[in-house]
Amino acid sequence: MSGFDLSEEMYAKQDGLMNRVKTGIDGLDIILSGGLPEKSITLVSGPPGSGKSIFCFQFLYEGIKEGERGLFLTLDKKVNGLLIQAKKLGFDFQPSLEKKLAKFLFLNINKKLVYESMINEILSGEFDRIVLDSITPLSEMPIYLKSTEKNIDTDMLDSEESSVNVNLPVRRLHLRYIMDALESSDATSIVTSELPMGSSHFSRDGISEFLADGVITFNLDPTMDRRKLSVMKMRNTKHTLKPQDIEISEGGIRLI
Amino acid sequence: MSGFDLSEEMYAKQDGLMNRVKTGIDGLDIILSGGLPEKSITLVSGPPGSGKSIFCFQFLYEGIKEGERGLFLTLDKKVNGLLIQAKKLGFDFQPSLEKKLAKFLFLNINKKLVYESMINEILSGEFDRIVLDSITPLSEMPIYLKSTEKNIDTDMLDSEESSVNVNLPVRRLHLRYIMDALESSDATSIVTSELPMGSSHFSRDGISEFLADGVITFNLDPTMDRRKLSVMKMRNTKHTLKPQDIEISEGGIRLI
Amino acid sequence: MSGFDLSEEMYAKQDGLMNRVKTGIDGLDIILSGGLPEKSITLVSGPPGSGKSIFCFQFLYEGIKEGERGLFLTLDKKVNGLLIQAKKLGFDFQPSLEKKLAKFLFLNINKKLVYESMINEILSGEFDRIVLDSITPLSEMPIYLKSTEKNIDTDMLDSEESSVNVNLPVRRLHLRYIMDALESSDATSIVTSELPMGSSHFSRDGISEFLADGVITFNLDPTMDRRKLSVMKMRNTKHTLKPQDIEISEGGIRLI
Amino acid sequence: MSGFDLSEEMYAKQDGLMNRVKTGIDGLDIILSGGLPEKSITLVSGPPGSGKSIFCFQFLYEGIKEGERGLFLTLDKKVNGLLIQAKKLGFDFQPSLEKKLAKFLFLNINKKLVYESMINEILSGEFDRIVLDSITPLSEMPIYLKSTEKNIDTDMLDSEESSVNVNLPVRRLHLRYIMDALESSDATSIVTSELPMGSSHFSRDGISEFLADGVITFNLDPTMDRRKLSVMKMRNTKHTLKPQDIEISEGGIRLI
Amino acid sequence: MSGFDLSEEMYAKQDGLMNRVKTGIDGLDIILSGGLPEKSITLVSGPPGSGKSIFCFQFLYEGIKEGERGLFLTLDKKVNGLLIQAKKLGFDFQPSLEKKLAKFLFLNINKKLVYESMINEILSGEFDRIVLDSITPLSEMPIYLKSTEKNIDTDMLDSEESSVNVNLPVRRLHLRYIMDALESSDATSIVTSELPMGSSHFSRDGISEFLADGVITFNLDPTMDRRKLSVMKMRNTKHTLKPQDIEISEGGIRLI
Amino acid sequence: MSGFDLSEEMYAKQDGLMNRVKTGIDGLDIILSGGLPEKSITLVSGPPGSGKSIFCFQFLYEGIKEGERGLFLTLDKKVNGLLIQAKKLGFDFQPSLEKKLAKFLFLNINKKLVYESMINEILSGEFDRIVLDSITPLSEMPIYLKSTEKNIDTDMLDSEESSVNVNLPVRRLHLRYIMDALESSDATSIVTSELPMGSSHFSRDGISEFLADGVITFNLDPTMDRRKLSVMKMRNTKHTLKPQDIEISEGGIRLI
Repeated sequence: MSGFDLSEEMYAKQDGLMNRVKTGIDGLDIILSGGLPEKSITLVSGPPGSGKSIFCFQFLYEGIKEGERGLFLTLDKKVNGLLIQAKKLGFDFQPSLEKKLAKFLFLNINKKLVYESMINEILSGEFDRIVLDSITPLSEMPIYLKSTEKNIDTDMLDSEESSVNVNLPVRRLHLRYIMDALESSDATSIVTSELPMGSSHFSRDGISEFLADGVITFNLDPTMDRRKLSVMKMRNTKHTLKPQDIEISEGGIRLI
Repeated sequence: MSGFDLSEEMYAKQDGLMNRVKTGIDGLDIILSGGLPEKSITLVSGPPGSGKSIFCFQFLYEGIKEGERGLFLTLDKKVNGLLIQAKKLGFDFQPSLEKKLAKFLFLNINKKLVYESMINEILSGEFDRIVLDSITPLSEMPIYLKSTEKNIDTDMLDSEESSVNVNLPVRRLHLRYIMDALESSDATSIVTSELPMGSSHFSRDGISEFLADGVITFNLDPTMDRRKLSVMKMRNTKHTLKPQDIEISEGGIRLI
Repeated sequence: MSGFDLSEEMYAKQDGLMNRVKTGIDGLDIILSGGLPEKSITLVSGPPGSGKSIFCFQFLYEGIKEGERGLFLTLDKKVNGLLIQAKKLGFDFQPSLEKKLAKFLFLNINKKLVYESMINEILSGEFDRIVLDSITPLSEMPIYLKSTEKNIDTDMLDSEESSVNVNLPVRRLHLRYIMDALESSDATSIVTSELPMGSSHFSRDGISEFLADGVITFNLDPTMDRRKLSVMKMRNTKHTLKPQDIEISEGGIRLI
Repeated sequence: MSGFDLSEEMYAKQDGLMNRVKTGIDGLDIILSGGLPEKSITLVSGPPGSGKSIFCFQFLYEGIKEGERGLFLTLDKKVNGLLIQAKKLGFDFQPSLEKKLAKFLFLNINKKLVYESMINEILSGEFDRIVLDSITPLSEMPIYLKSTEKNIDTDMLDSEESSVNVNLPVRRLHLRYIMDALESSDATSIVTSELPMGSSHFSRDGISEFLADGVITFNLDPTMDRRKLSVMKMRNTKHTLKPQDIEISEGGIRLI
Repeated sequence: MSGFDLSEEMYAKQDGLMNRVKTGIDGLDIILSGGLPEKSITLVSGPPGSGKSIFCFQFLYEGIKEGERGLFLTLDKKVNGLLIQAKKLGFDFQPSLEKKLAKFLFLNINKKLVYESMINEILSGEFDRIVLDSITPLSEMPIYLKSTEKNIDTDMLDSEESSVNVNLPVRRLHLRYIMDALESSDATSIVTSELPMGSSHFSRDGISEFLADGVITFNLDPTMDRRKLSVMKMRNTKHTLKPQDIEISEGGIRLI
Repeated sequence: MSGFDLSEEMYAKQDGLMNRVKTGIDGLDIILSGGLPEKSITLVSGPPGSGKSIFCFQFLYEGIKEGERGLFLTLDKKVNGLLIQAKKLGFDFQPSLEKKLAKFLFLNINKKLVYESMINEILSGEFDRIVLDSITPLSEMPIYLKSTEKNIDTDMLDSEESSVNVNLPVRRLHLRYIMDALESSDATSIVTSELPMGSSHFSRDGISEFLADGVITFNLDPTMDRRKLSVMKMRNTKHTLKPQDIEISEGGIRLI
């Protein structure tokens, strides 16, 4: 914890943030001056059925088309179903799964080592794009971090301070822990958050939107039978806040 | 917990999701491109008197007409009354009860083994359609899962981790446990959730809608004397979000 | 807890549900296709002064006029006052009290055995119509059921499971316990629930409306100086949801 | 706790409920068919400055003019100030205080025996009209009833059940305890409840309105510079629900 | 705790309540028939930046101009800053501080004896006007009153009852304690309460408005760029409820 | 804790409050009569993506242009990213970091001594402008102040009173502690607070706005694609409350 001088090397690394990573949704990439900032973390939130998971498929698939490797971390046990769902939308991950370009990993929150496994994958350095769908159940876990996990990111937790740490608000701690890992990886990341229908918030936990570099929200308007997408925040990017009408069909999400 | 390659066999099994299971409500089946996705779980929520249970009757009866077997899990002790109510609407389950095509089971949440009995029935493999009406009291049960239940789905709970598991948020655990069992069965399933009048949420618990493959909501508009039904989410299905006016009379629910 | 076949005898008994029990409010009975379903439980809810208790008087008195016996369970110590109030509205219970056709019972929630007394009366088989006015204070009682009460309905509580039962959410347990007793009686029943002014809910507890066969709500509109009644749910009955203007005067409640 | 037959004597006593007790507000007495029902309890609620205390003065003073004795129970230490305030409005209680026709009693909720003193006064039988201004702090007291208090109303608390009683929701218990005492007295009573500005509820505690025989609410409309009074409930009385514009000046409250 | 007769002496003392104490805001004094009632307590509430503290300066300064002594109790450590702020508005307290006509006291709520010090100053009898800005942090203190504090106002706490007292709701106790001290002083008092922006309540604690003799609220309307002041309650005073547009500039608050 | 006389020296020091510190946003400085009051603390709050951090960059950079030294305290681990983000907007801190005119410090709330480090920096006397972005996670820390921290500001905590202090509401204590340190420094300060989207409050904690000298809020209007800034409070400053449309682009925030 000391003052900060930005070395040449750092500039070089950070300048990468200015590079753009295509989401695969043409209209959105235009709004974002080319795509998500490279190595950034974007929060994608919305009610069920609004298109969050499809956005994640599309984002990962876009990378694979460009030869990038993608990791899909899911809390949904039905990984098979996800792949079918994706394929039906035109995102066939089977070839890339075989070529090890894509990896779909079920995170079982009932397993003790779910955190370790997740963090190990994130920090493996093998992926250019990472999706975590969704962060909500993880943020609600009341389990305290154990000393065995400290060697993953020694910068985050002092070994002498474990008794202090457990006193910190658990939710914020969980979220920072995950966000820090994603930040430490060299990947561009998406995390999704489950919103109750009609919520005007940006995340279920009320914290993620401040930790993420960008926020994209999905909305449903049943009366008008319309789906919308809004970019609410994106670091280093000048963008419109206006909700964009979208359509979901073969090929994924499309701005209309 | 490892990376995932979709084998041929899995594709074959999962492709079943694309098959459609008729709800018995013609207009709704059209909206759903033929019906609910086979082997999917659909959440049906609404205030009292909005038509949730009638939807369940109709769904099960439609299957029986097609020679499929149906399981109706109810928290309502008055199973007799349910059968009478169904018969009055034109759904006479008596013949199928006798032929063992249909089974109505009262889940007594005061019984210690209610979970085991429910899961055993769900996983018996004897049913093509399963209804759980409603999931709300089960999700509110504060009882922790016991080690005796672990042998049901050894994939879900590690025996060494029982002390960790009880720390997980109980509600989400309950819901995942039930949803996982329904998912593991070969049946197409409906679970209902009790909503307070005027709620804009999709479930009472705020979690089920993210675990289910589909969400259908029922609404009452007393001033206009109107009932409505909306498909808010359905995996692998392109559908309208528009509320549909419905009528309930002999023959069950009908779109008008 | 086993599968269910509907025997002839059961059909005969349950067919009674189709018989109608007059409320004594002509307009309402027309809306309800003749009255409340026989042996059903109807939740009547509304703010103070909206007419819930008067509805109960009228319902019980209507039965007595037809030669039926009625039980009025009240949480109001002032039973005298209730009788006077009823008489003033044209419902003179004195003759039927003397002939043992009517019984008014004060439930003292400060008494340990209030549950036992209540259940004993309900299950006595001596009444065709039962009123519980109101269920709200009972549902809020934090006292756990004791083993001495188990012999009342051995089907509901397993003696080996008492330690489990106390873990169940107390409110839902209380409500089911009462509803089950009413259901087990051969009477047609009314339970009232106290709603705060302006509430759009159907009961104070948020659970009763799902346990009852029917829901009738009373509302006050001070600005228009109007009282309204709405049938929001009634099993086996096709009815309007439209709020009905009512007037309360000698003779009780009348639709206008 | 047994069935109830209404003896002649009871009828005679209860018939008193039909007699009317003038509030001293002419327009209101007309709305109430002559006044409050004799021996009834009326809840008077509203935000600060809406006129609740002035209503109490006026009610007590009206009785004194008719030769009735009045008790004013206040949680406000500044009894002097109350008397001055009343006098300024034209209600000079000094002569009646000297003649023992009126009694103003400060209830110190920091005193252990505040309940005993209050109940003793209420049950003294010396008063025709009783005011309790306000019931809110009493209902919020977390102190459990002690066995020493049981001899006041042996009908309410069984000596063997004290361990059970402390388990009852304290607020409802407090309110019933006070309401029962007022009911047991031969007086006509007013209790006030403090409402936050803008509340649409009938009492702060959400329970009193169901225990009282009548409910009168006071409201402020700052934009229109108007005060209003509404009769929301009154047993044995047919009345309008319409808010009545009022004016407060010398002579107290007046309908305009 | 006994009945109350108003002696001549008391009348004399209390009649003082009819005297008016100028606030220094001419338009407001006209609305209040000359000013605040002498020896009364007025609650002044509003969001940050609405003018509460400036109202307090003006009130105290008005007194000093008339030769009255004023006490300003503040929770703000920056007493210097307050004096500068006041001076900038035209209220130069320096001369009166030197002549001991004015006293500004910082109440450090981290100090154990903050209550004792505050009460001692209030009861010193040396001040005609007292300001407490603000009561909010004091009302939120969870520290229980100690026996050492009882000798301040032996009328309030019985020494034998300390174990009972700590059971009382702490917030109400704190507020009454402070209000009683202000009432016991011979001063006219102002207490401020911090309201969140957009609140329609009269105080943060929801209790002070019922304990105070008067309530004045400040509001901000950013869209119209307007500040408003409303008299919501004032004992012994007939006043408008209408919000008054105000302007804050040199000379303090002015009605426009 | 004693009465207060404003010495000449104090006047001299405090008169500094009248000096203005430019924010670097020309339009805002005009509204503020030249800028923020020197040595004041301004709360800047808003939802994610509304421009809070950019405001902080601009404020600090404006100082550096004038030869002032600036401290940026951030809860965001990605200090590099912040510098890049700032540079992209035209605020290149690299030269001033090298000349020690600027310091960016990451506050790790998982570290035990985060408070001590932060306070030491604030009180170092080396900075003319200080930014704390954001105060929200700090205010939510449940860790109690330790005796080792007392020597930082002995005026705030009595060593004999540590057992009492831990009973104080922790949030308010944290906030006062930080605000007092900022106040004790000779710097002009900005603290940011994270608001959920759509909130009308001034801070997440509900307290900071009363402790700060000024409040500036940022808002997003997605439908109109507009960002706004409002000055809601500023001591010693007459200002408009009207929301100001802003634009964020190279050069930072600009009123339009």
